[in-house]
Parts: sequence; C-alpha cells; structure tokens
Amino acid sequence: MESVAQKLIRSHLVSGEMTPGAEIGLRIDQTLTQDATGTLVMQELEALGLDRVRTELSAQYVDHNLLQTDEKNAEDHEFLLSGSRRYGLWFSKPGNGVSHPTHMQRFGRPGASMVGSDSHTPAAGSLGMLAIGVGGLEVALAIAGEPLYLRMPQIWGVELVGELPAWCSAKDVILELLRRHGVKGGLNRILEFHGPGLDTLTAMDRHVIANMGAELGATTTVFPADNAVREFLRSEDRPYDYIELLADPGATYDIDEQIDLATIEPLIAKPSSPGDVVTVREVAGEPVAQVVVGSSANPGLRDFAIVAAMLTGRQTSPEVSVDINPTSREILEDLTRMGATFELIRSGARIHQSGCMGCIGMGQAPAVGRNSLRTMPRNFPGRSGTDEDSVWLCSPETAAAAALTGTIIDPRDLAEQLGLDLPVLDLPAHASVNTAMLVAPLPKDEAAQVALVKGPNVSGLPDFAPLADTLEAPVLLVVGDNISTDDISPAGARALPFRSNIPKLAEFTFTRVDETYPARAAEHRADTGHLIVGGENYGQGSSREHAAIAPRYLGLRAVIAKSFARIHWQNLANFGILALEFVDPEDYNGIERDDVLRMDGLRAAVASGSELAVRNVTKETKIAVRHTLSDRQVRAVLAGGVIPMLAAQR
Amino acid sequence: MESVAQKLIRSHLVSGEMTPGAEIGLRIDQTLTQDATGTLVMQELEALGLDRVRTELSAQYVDHNLLQTDEKNAEDHEFLLSGSRRYGLWFSKPGNGVSHPTHMQRFGRPGASMVGSDSHTPAAGSLGMLAIGVGGLEVALAIAGEPLYLRMPQIWGVELVGELPAWCSAKDVILELLRRHGVKGGLNRILEFHGPGLDTLTAMDRHVIANMGAELGATTTVFPADNAVREFLRSEDRPYDYIELLADPGATYDIDEQIDLATIEPLIAKPSSPGDVVTVREVAGEPVAQVVVGSSANPGLRDFAIVAAMLTGRQTSPEVSVDINPTSREILEDLTRMGATFELIRSGARIHQSGCMGCIGMGQAPAVGRNSLRTMPRNFPGRSGTDEDSVWLCSPETAAAAALTGTIIDPRDLAEQLGLDLPVLDLPAHASVNTAMLVAPLPKDEAAQVALVKGPNVSGLPDFAPLADTLEAPVLLVVGDNISTDDISPAGARALPFRSNIPKLAEFTFTRVDETYPARAAEHRADTGHLIVGGENYGQGSSREHAAIAPRYLGLRAVIAKSFARIHWQNLANFGILALEFVDPEDYNGIERDDVLRMDGLRAAVASGSELAVRNVTKETKIAVRHTLSDRQVRAVLAGGVIPMLAAQR
Repeated sequence: MESVAQKLIRSHLVSGEMTPGAEIGLRIDQTLTQDATGTLVMQELEALGLDRVRTELSAQYVDHNLLQTDEKNAEDHEFLLSGSRRYGLWFSKPGNGVSHPTHMQRFGRPGASMVGSDSHTPAAGSLGMLAIGVGGLEVALAIAGEPLYLRMPQIWGVELVGELPAWCSAKDVILELLRRHGVKGGLNRILEFHGPGLDTLTAMDRHVIANMGAELGATTTVFPADNAVREFLRSEDRPYDYIELLADPGATYDIDEQIDLATIEPLIAKPSSPGDVVTVREVAGEPVAQVVVGSSANPGLRDFAIVAAMLTGRQTSPEVSVDINPTSREILEDLTRMGATFELIRSGARIHQSGCMGCIGMGQAPAVGRNSLRTMPRNFPGRSGTDEDSVWLCSPETAAAAALTGTIIDPRDLAEQLGLDLPVLDLPAHASVNTAMLVAPLPKDEAAQVALVKGPNVSGLPDFAPLADTLEAPVLLVVGDNISTDDISPAGARALPFRSNIPKLAEFTFTRVDETYPARAAEHRADTGHLIVGGENYGQGSSREHAAIAPRYLGLRAVIAKSFARIHWQNLANFGILALEFVDPEDYNGIERDDVLRMDGLRAAVASGSELAVRNVTKETKIAVRHTLSDRQVRAVLAGGVIPMLAAQR
Repeated sequence: MESVAQKLIRSHLVSGEMTPGAEIGLRIDQTLTQDATGTLVMQELEALGLDRVRTELSAQYVDHNLLQTDEKNAEDHEFLLSGSRRYGLWFSKPGNGVSHPTHMQRFGRPGASMVGSDSHTPAAGSLGMLAIGVGGLEVALAIAGEPLYLRMPQIWGVELVGELPAWCSAKDVILELLRRHGVKGGLNRILEFHGPGLDTLTAMDRHVIANMGAELGATTTVFPADNAVREFLRSEDRPYDYIELLADPGATYDIDEQIDLATIEPLIAKPSSPGDVVTVREVAGEPVAQVVVGSSANPGLRDFAIVAAMLTGRQTSPEVSVDINPTSREILEDLTRMGATFELIRSGARIHQSGCMGCIGMGQAPAVGRNSLRTMPRNFPGRSGTDEDSVWLCSPETAAAAALTGTIIDPRDLAEQLGLDLPVLDLPAHASVNTAMLVAPLPKDEAAQVALVKGPNVSGLPDFAPLADTLEAPVLLVVGDNISTDDISPAGARALPFRSNIPKLAEFTFTRVDETYPARAAEHRADTGHLIVGGENYGQGSSREHAAIAPRYLGLRAVIAKSFARIHWQNLANFGILALEFVDPEDYNGIERDDVLRMDGLRAAVASGSELAVRNVTKETKIAVRHTLSDRQVRAVLAGGVIPMLAAQR
C-alpha cells in the first residue's frame, strides 16, 4: 500500500532504507540543465573525462541568459551547443522555451527519475516523475551514471476535494499552501497530491503547483500519472510514453492535509516573499505599474489563453506595462494559431521572447517601489533586478484584471464591474509539436569528433590535485559565524556573467568580507595554498557550488570551522577541500590571520577518521581537529575531489 | 522649377537665403524624440519653463532602452510619460515600436517639417517630409516654437530608372549608393530621389532608403509625395493627410546621379562600416552564427513577410540564432493576422519585443568574431555590444537565405538550389491601425496639473548662471588636438543608463583623458569654476550635447582652444560655455595645468566681439583671445545658455 512517491523511490533505489532521515541512493533516468548552471556542468563532464551521457536522456536548455548585452551570453550558448553535441545531450536553442515546461512537453514520462540544476525541477512531478533540483556536480554525476544520494524525506499527503470556483486556478491552490505553511513548510518533505479534486486539474495545472512546491522548501512534489497525464501526452503526440502510476488504495502518508478546492479564492503573495500570502481583496486598490505573465510557474497554453480572453476587445491601462513572456515556442505557436497572440498584441501587451526573462532578473526590472504583479514563482527582494522592488505573485486571472484596471483587483469583482462572463477557452486538442529548435544528440561516432567551442569567457575547470600528506599553509581569513555562500561567491549582475569563467569569477570571492582576499590567495596559489578559519554554520544559504570551486581555484586546501552548513560541506568535499571541525571550539580564538598551520600524515589520518593534530607554526601551539566525512567523501577528498576520483576510475 | 527639397525648405523658411552654405532658419511642424535622448529633452523643456508644445505635433517614443536590467529604464519610461502628459506630447509606450516607422504610420504627412533627436529621423522623407536629425536641445527649442538653423545644403538628385530584379529590394538600392560614395558621400547634401523607377517603390521601401541615407552622412533624404504615399496613407486610415508634392517638371539639382534599378544585385556591407559594400556573391560561403531581422532600416510588413515566406515550411539552421525584432506593434499585429508570425515561430525564429534591440546594442550581442547578418542600418565596430564583433548589413532576402543555410549566400543562388519561386506576398490592404499603446496628449487644463515623475535616476538640469563680468579660475585640463566628444562624455553600457542623470553622468566626464578631472572640477564648482585649454578641432565627432552639459555641470566656464569642431562649438554656446580661440596659437604653449587665468570686462567684450585680454595670474603673462559667435549665440552665452535666455523671454 504505497504512495506514488514511495513507488517512485523504491523503483529507483540502489542503496539505503526508505526510512525518513536515512541516506538513500537513487538511479537517475533523466537530467535537465539550464544555461546559468549548465556551463559549469559541461566543464565538469569534460573534467570527468566522460565520453557520452549514461542517462536515458539528458537535455540542456538555454532560457536564463537571453539578453546578450555583450558577447558572453552568445559564447555560453555556443559552448553549450558544442558540449551537448560532444556528450550526447539534447540542446534546446535560445528561444525554444523555459526548461521545465519544455522538458515536460517533449521528454517527461511517468515513472522516471530526474535531477536538474535548477530549483524548479520538481515541476516534472506533474507527470508522475520524481524530479529533484540539485547542484551542478550532482547533475554531472547523474549524467555520468552515478546515483543521487539524499536523505529519505517524509511524504506529505495533500488530499484535494471539491472543485475550484470561477476565476480561480492552480496558482491559487499553491498560494493557499504557502499561506498555510510559509516558505519552510516543506523542508525535508515530498508533497504528494491525491484525492478526487485531482480530476479537475490538468497536467499543466499540476505543473504550476509542483513548480511552486519548491517555494515551500519541499524536496519535490509528485502527482499520480492518471487520465490527465494520459491526455497531456496524447496532446503532445507521445501517447506511447504513458504508463499509469497511482497510489495504492489505502496508501498512507507521514503527514496528512486536505484542501477543499471549492473554498479557494484569488490569492496573492505580497512583497517580498512567496510565503506572505493574502486574499486579493485584502489588498485591492493598490496601483500597479507592471504586469508580467510567464515563467515556469505560469507554463501552459491555458494560463496565457485566459489572459488573452480577458483582454480581447479591451485595452490595457496606459499606466501599466503588460509584459507577456511565452514560456515556450510551442506555447507561442499555439497561442498564435488560435488567435490569442493577436488579441494580446491588439490590447497593448508587449510580447517578449520565450524564456525566463524577468523571473530571474534578466530584464523587465520595475521602477523603485512601483508595484509589479507577476505570475512567477518568486519575489525575493531585488530578484527583479531592482533593489527596492515591490513584486507580487498571483494567478493569470488576477494579473489580467490588473492589466485592465491599473490596480490590484479580485477578478471576480472586475467581472462584476464589467459584466464579464468567465471565458470558455477553446484550446486545441493537439499542441503545435515541432522540434525545430531542439537539436538532437549526435550519433556516438560523430559526437566523439566534436571539439568543445570555448570563447574567451569559458574557462576550463581548475586542476584538482590529490590531497597532500603534509600541509603547511597560511590562514588567509578568520571569519565569524554564519558566513553564507553569498558572502563567499556573490550573485548579481556583475558576477553572474562569469559563471562559466572560474578564474574571473574567483576575483569576486569573499570580496564582501575582505576585498584583499583574492589577491592574497593568488600569491600562495602556486606553492603552499592557504587555509580559512570559520565559526559556526560556515557556508549557509544557497547551494551554489561556485562557492567551493572558486576558493579552490585560488588555492584553498582546508577550512577549519566550529561547524558547517550541510550543502556547502558536501560541496567542499565534492571539490577536494578538507572540511575540519575544532575538537575544542575555544581553539578558534587562538588563531589569527596569517598564522601558518601545519598538518603531517594527513592522508592516513583523514582515511582513518581519527583526530588530527594541527601545529600553529607561527604561535608554536597545537590543537586538535576532526572531520565527519562519509567513506565516499573521504575517497573524494583524498583524490582531490569527486571529479578526479571518478576520472581515475574510468 | 523647384525640386521637392527646395519646395519643402521654401515653405518653411523664416530667415536666410536658399544658397548652399548660407544659414537658413526653418519653421518646424513636428518633432520626434526617443528615450535615450528624450529624457534630456524633457528636462530641457522643464528648464525652458515651457507650458505646452508649440508644434503641430510632438511625439515621444520609447524604443531604445527596453531591456530593463535594473530600475533605471523603467524610471526613465515613467518620467517620459509624465513629461509627455505635462507638455502635451504623444507618448508611445515601450513595445509600441521603433520611432521612425511608428511616426510614419501614425503622424507623418507630406509637406511637413520635422526635427528628431535621432540620426535616422530623415526616414520620414519617404512621405515627402523634410525631416532632420539634430541634438536634443534643438528638438527642445523646436518644441518650444523656435526655428531650426542650419546651413543650406546642396540638393543631390538621384534619378531612378528601371525596375529591381527578383530577390533584390530597397535595401540593395541604398547599399548601392553606399558602395558608390561611402559614408561621407552625402555630407552637407540633401538626397532627392526622382524618376520613373520611383513607381516601383512603396512608401515603406522609400523609408528603407531615406533611413540609411543617414549612413551617407546626408543632411536628409526626400522623396516626392505621389501615388505611393497616397496608397500608404490610405492603408493607415489617414487618406485625409495626403497632399501631392512633386518636383516641378524640369527641376534641376546641384548634383545629378542615376541608378538603373535593373542592374542592382544583392549587396552586403562588410564588417565594420556601412560603406564597405560588396556583392553577396563575393563573400558567399562565410559561416553565419546569427541573423537579425528588424530595425528602422527594415521597417515594413513586406520586409518581414518576405522572410516569413522564405522560411515557411522550412527550418532554420541549428547553428544560427534567427532573431526577429518586429519594428512596431502594428507590424507584428499584421504579421500575426496574416499568419506570418506563426510561420516564423514554426521555422525556429526567436520573436523579440518591438523596438530597436540589437540595432543599438541593447541585447542580441553576438559571440566574438562570429558573423552576424543584420538588416539594420549600422555596423560600426562594437555597436552590437561585442567589442570584436563581425556584423554585416544586408536585405531581408539575404538575411533569410543565411538563416536557412547557416552561410552567406546570394538569395538567387539559394532559390536555384532549392527550386524556390520568388514568393508572391499577399499583404493586407489595410494596416492593423490601433492606438492602444499611444497615449494622447492631455487637454491643456489637465496637463498643467501634471507633476513630472522623477525617480532617483532622473536629475534636473543644472542651473545655468549668466556669464560673469570677471572670470578668475584655474585651468584644470590642457589637452591636445582632435579631442572628441567621446573623449569628453563616453558612451557605452556603463555610462548610457545615466543619460537622464547629469550629476552621475558627469562623473564619467573626460575620464578617458584624465580620470582625476571630475573630482578636481568638483572642488572648484561652487566658487570660481574652471577652464579647459585645447588644441585644434576641439570637440570633434558625435553630436551628443552631454559633452557640453556635463562639464558645465562640473563648473566649466570657458574653453580656450586653437580651433573648434562645428557641432560641439554650437553645443558649448547652447549651454553657456564660452568658446574662445587663441589669436596667436603659439600662446597655447604658455599655459600649464593649474595656471589661474583672469578675464575682466568679459560681458562687454563678448558682446562687442572684440579681442579679449587674458591674464595668466600664475605665470604673470598676458595673451589675446577672440570668439566667432553669432549675435544669437552671444545673447545665449551672456544669459548662461539658450535655456535661461529663452526662459527670460517668456
């Protein structure tokens, strides 16, 4: 009597027990990468010495960096095309669409597992897949045929009953869950939807919900593969990919919850958190300067068609910029075929290229303090590109109502004001399936001949030398508690274009903490390398692996801290940096910047898991440190990182 | 027996004689501004104390800065909307389209005069208008009802005979002129087209030619208002705006030239000059990474429809990014209505928002050294946003051929290879006229109540104090010959977002020459101000008025140079900076940085036009200088600039 999530996990389990909290290993069928993280994944594949993908299917999308304000984006795109050809990935050209809905349309299949280097990867759960967002190296490893290791989550069953009222849609369902539980409500959980209310939600509706499950902090979200999925795959000319995947009758969940869809009303997340949800009526009357419709959280034909229907024969408010980002070329083609594009243009909307656009702050930044209503998944402060932004998240219905009136208004109230009937959408039964912008993998023989095309902005990964047996190096930074990966490797418009260029990106390392660090580290890079000393919770925050690779490039050999945040600790091991903890946290106070520390017999000590003696050569003192690495991680660190470890095994 | 150009000039002449080289004053009927220059124009209107536009029609377009990578663009858009409302301009919203074709569709009328703060303003000559590109203040003055002053150009008559062969179009005609005469061939000339070949060119074809006449350096280009113009205005629902305007039979021209259209073949401008034109066949086989179709030099429905027709039922090369920038919302609406948008999407093209986009380096930057074929007017080095770019200019037919093959290929050769018939375009007789994104001027009463909306990035103009009678100030820069306005106020992605923010823009002033200048100037700003000493041809290059306003903001009172470039010399006077020439150029050598110079009885001396004595207080020497300002300019300089002069008159 298993749930869908349990069936998906069991059918991919290669190690461990399915007990919440225990480490499990999962076989991965498919991978998804986008351009902002994919350039590093390609470099990791190169460093791993991979000849060809070992997954059933891997796809590389270009959807993030589409503005091309200088040559760097175009170079990244060329590099990714050449890498896809070399290693046997599908390549989705710039303009073909956002990864998640495009993957769902072309490649997703019930019963498959997937990892993706994008936090909204769980959207594929809409098809009955187990799809998890992870760091780039985990994706590279999956592409190379390695399992994904994670702690078994709890299964959170959400029973849907009833039917959504008029002017409400799937976005309001996930906003209701965010209203109830906030942005940490799903940590270490898999959301699984079940119940009779499911019948009223199409596969693309479910995509909206699974996508924004990420905002609850959930590991992933799954839906059953039922008739809605069958219909979807049929409409995409892939009926053969359908298998039924349902929870067993009487399946139980670790946590139980119910939503009566009939009680849902139009909801909106206030600036600046997806978890700060109120009813639209509570904030009605706020003036609106921008409405943006699009993103992987507003993916389907229906989500644009309802906006077009509401705007047809009307004009958008002169005060509002109404921006339409078709999520994929397929959606745009269908919208155009059915006349909806024409109506959107005619009503005064701006039609943008297919891609993430303003959802990841690539353009469409609003003016300071002006309200921007978006059908997107996130409104973290500044994510729009404007530091003091005021971004709200809502359904396409609520967005369209604001486009017409220039104010926040419940679409039910607008309908009453205008005498508007709920539009009946006449959507085509078959999608405009075409693969013109999807470049298929080359045959193996041809692929082997392909050279990677690296423009000046695409660096190789640095060399990762094995761990030395003796380490004697200066401490270049002594930092306090709660250093975040943002402190280590900043995001933002200055640094992000260099995500494929580690030497250049390294120049930004720790500059928020000490701007002299990169230059000082570079002095020691070729000989001794250097060390960093940290406090509690070192490396908290975003999972970006650049926060390990960039310091490693600058010669960081080991971090000694009071404690580590989990993901960064994993990333340090992945990239061959030794993460050591003080046995006595008080010893933190005995180390100063530029002290030279020495460790002897390091390889044997790390391998045995015993405590290590560290000599402070400068102060002539001695302290004890230890590590908590798994056997797998110890092997990686000894080899210089996961990449050289696996390359050596091939 | 006058030509069209002569009739247009005579009917607007308010001063001067129509002798080539003589100064003439012209009454201006319409103005056009775009966002990159318009923010300053609005601030100039504010500084002038204008209550309401005095032209027949003024229109503000937003087409350049559409990417909105941070809040500055959105703030500029809001500011421009509020300014349009305050002063009675039409406001064309972001997404409504590129200024030139949009203006032609909605507002252009035969017989009218126009100035625009954009160098491609002459495109309106396609309708039988006299349309001239000028600096922002000249536009602001025209909006305020002042005449435009310029030297009477020569009239260059170009007789067209014959008919274009298959696979050639208007772009090839202007490329032929650029092939013959290069980028300086039109200096101080007005191109006037006449002859029987005209009958084969639509009004939008003529727009292509008039637009790129700017690349010849011509003052402007005019066509007669004949049946083609009548047809165009009818298709735009404005038949009432048509008047016939033809050259008198037997009209003569200062220069005569003939083009036999039947001899034209597909042409292409090589990187990196519009004047470096060869036949497409000469460069066939070059690999192509990007094809961009759009801009004001590829404005019409026909120019996109021919591309769509060539791509219909085919797929674009996987190696090529095919980027489509609809020039206006109207064009996109028509393309969508006739099914061409659908075919473009289906063939694998990326559809972008309506605007200038890559034509002014706002996005779409190619990879270094990769060939980009564009239907745009300019390919100056780096203009694409990529320093070492490789941009070619060609017709839409040649662009589409490259999109299909991934190489440069003469469309005639492609047609033969594919057995392709020349597409017969079935264009709608009526355009999708709609003004949803065009905000009409407010009635005068309401307009007076509107406050300008200035975000943090929109500064006011600096105060312009009258010329003091005694000037004693340090020389902060002594520069050599041929200092350009690019040296004074750099362009580029760092500085351009501050075009509406003079204090911030001023921080970039002269930094290419001496990066300490802005800080040193600021020290003296509040008291004495400062001086600059220059060599020959001071202020050559681009017409940007920022090169006068920004130093003036920093306290520049006078420039003493060996000689001045004409436009910058005019801009200095416009903004109240005294431009003085050494009587004896050898005296240049007697002045060093930080010398303090003193001039007494300045106002009377400037007014009388006599030589001025300059005492070098530091070196205890004395030299003589003089000015060559007109009476009009003297009045402006005494008042502190044109703006305070005119404000005082109101």
